[in-house]
Amino acid sequence: MKALYYENGLQYREDYPKPSPGPGESLVQIIISSICNTDKEILKGYRPDFKGILGHEFVGKVVESHDSSLIGKRVVGEINESCGRCLYCKTGRPSHCENRKVVGISGKDGCFAEYITLKNELLHIVPEELPSDLAIFTEPLAAALEILDQVHIKPSTKVGLIGDGRLAYMIGQVVFLTGADLTIIGKHEEKLSLFKPFAKVTTSTDDTYEIVIDASGSPTGFLTAQKIVRKRGTIIIKSTYAGKIQIDMSDFVVNEVTVKGSRCGPFEPALKLLKLGLIKFPPIELYDLKDYEKAFASRAFKVGFKFYK
Amino acid sequence: MKALYYENGLQYREDYPKPSPGPGESLVQIIISSICNTDKEILKGYRPDFKGILGHEFVGKVVESHDSSLIGKRVVGEINESCGRCLYCKTGRPSHCENRKVVGISGKDGCFAEYITLKNELLHIVPEELPSDLAIFTEPLAAALEILDQVHIKPSTKVGLIGDGRLAYMIGQVVFLTGADLTIIGKHEEKLSLFKPFAKVTTSTDDTYEIVIDASGSPTGFLTAQKIVRKRGTIIIKSTYAGKIQIDMSDFVVNEVTVKGSRCGPFEPALKLLKLGLIKFPPIELYDLKDYEKAFASRAFKVGFKFYK
Repeated sequence: MKALYYENGLQYREDYPKPSPGPGESLVQIIISSICNTDKEILKGYRPDFKGILGHEFVGKVVESHDSSLIGKRVVGEINESCGRCLYCKTGRPSHCENRKVVGISGKDGCFAEYITLKNELLHIVPEELPSDLAIFTEPLAAALEILDQVHIKPSTKVGLIGDGRLAYMIGQVVFLTGADLTIIGKHEEKLSLFKPFAKVTTSTDDTYEIVIDASGSPTGFLTAQKIVRKRGTIIIKSTYAGKIQIDMSDFVVNEVTVKGSRCGPFEPALKLLKLGLIKFPPIELYDLKDYEKAFASRAFKVGFKFYK
Repeated sequence: MKALYYENGLQYREDYPKPSPGPGESLVQIIISSICNTDKEILKGYRPDFKGILGHEFVGKVVESHDSSLIGKRVVGEINESCGRCLYCKTGRPSHCENRKVVGISGKDGCFAEYITLKNELLHIVPEELPSDLAIFTEPLAAALEILDQVHIKPSTKVGLIGDGRLAYMIGQVVFLTGADLTIIGKHEEKLSLFKPFAKVTTSTDDTYEIVIDASGSPTGFLTAQKIVRKRGTIIIKSTYAGKIQIDMSDFVVNEVTVKGSRCGPFEPALKLLKLGLIKFPPIELYDLKDYEKAFASRAFKVGFKFYK
């Protein structure tokens, strides 16, 4: 099958072996898969140990499964395959399983390919009325919703969201739905204009906020967050990137600031919000898999690969 | 009056002018004051802007006050003098007041002197049955209790406390009272033996904990905390020190770890626990103020200055 294979670099292959579903797994034929910033970070060296097919955001159709109720269904998939036996699995934290494989990131082939196999319990059926080119946003939207599972954002909370890219746009819409007083702090006037229908936008870092979300995708984002968060406020970090930053920890002690890392989130609420049309996106730009270099170079809001209609 | 004055170094003075209480203030004659690690950090350059009398832990007697109910009473004092008008004062965070003065740390003379003036609302009356050489532990014990105001430590929570010094000892006793499964992670076998009556002790950093408290007083403490905290766990930082550390922030995102800075805490619960004898300490070692160099060099559990019986 066609696949985008990563090992110290990306290779387009047409001869990659089609996978066979193991016990409890389904074989999913990919309809669309899309590029996430984490994929780009992997290309920059964020996960030096990973080799395999890249990609973890997809919509596909189940073509083989021991669970007959899944066959023929359109599905999206969670990305953390857990062991069910470790401390984290047994204490309600399977996405933090010590032995986990992460689709297209760690120990498990991803979805930049014609087929993928995945555990049945990681699959979520896409509602019929939700088109695939919107359902493809389920995984990143779930990651944005994780923030609301972690902290209570109230209608009266003053929230600063650092970043004007795709991740920030997802998070911004989710935070907007809480009614919070939301300001987007970005660097690019033209990108910020996209946020104006639902949030205040600024390039200034002079104001302060109770909750600051760093979705900048850059190490400097956290330092900005440290500057603009209020005392006893909370910083949510959403960006992952290679490399370390220098931090004055005493500042956090004196100001009693809370910092929370935030990763993958709940799929069902994401599918529900998408189905109800409560989250809007610019259209995804789709490429053939062999044109992956163009796809990775594109500066469109969201870029993906189309496999079949 | 006698005073220990700081300006790029410590000076012992006998001619320092005795302060006069301003509106809403009391004049307090110091009975005992004690040295905190923050004082030592100031001597190392942690607060380059501060000049004035050092010291913020004291027990004294009110000798002048417009509030006649205070006169003659033994008191301890909170250290943050707030403005009552700023955002933080108006939203229930007066200890984070933007215009605050901090006794012996920032903008306000401290208690390594025969007298101090302090706002009446910062004074707490010491119960008669509580001797001054125990009441002197109120401020650091309150700072330890701040942790329980910030996070819910349950009897079933596995807690790792990094540090085997005085701060860790205070925090350890407070955490012990919750019934939590408490392990002290230290470097010095002889210091760790002090904790054995109420906690497990270890020099190993191989185990993992849901809540990790860094009371090491050293920049490496946080890196140890990052290593031993569980995924979705919480790190409480209690140490302040000069200098920055290098951190891999992506680690916090992937593991969804929460980091909370923790500073000053509630005085009344601290006085209550001390009065009930629920917190035990080795006796404080007391010096004359003029012997401040010996006092600062002492390695006793707690060191202070005695002014009068």
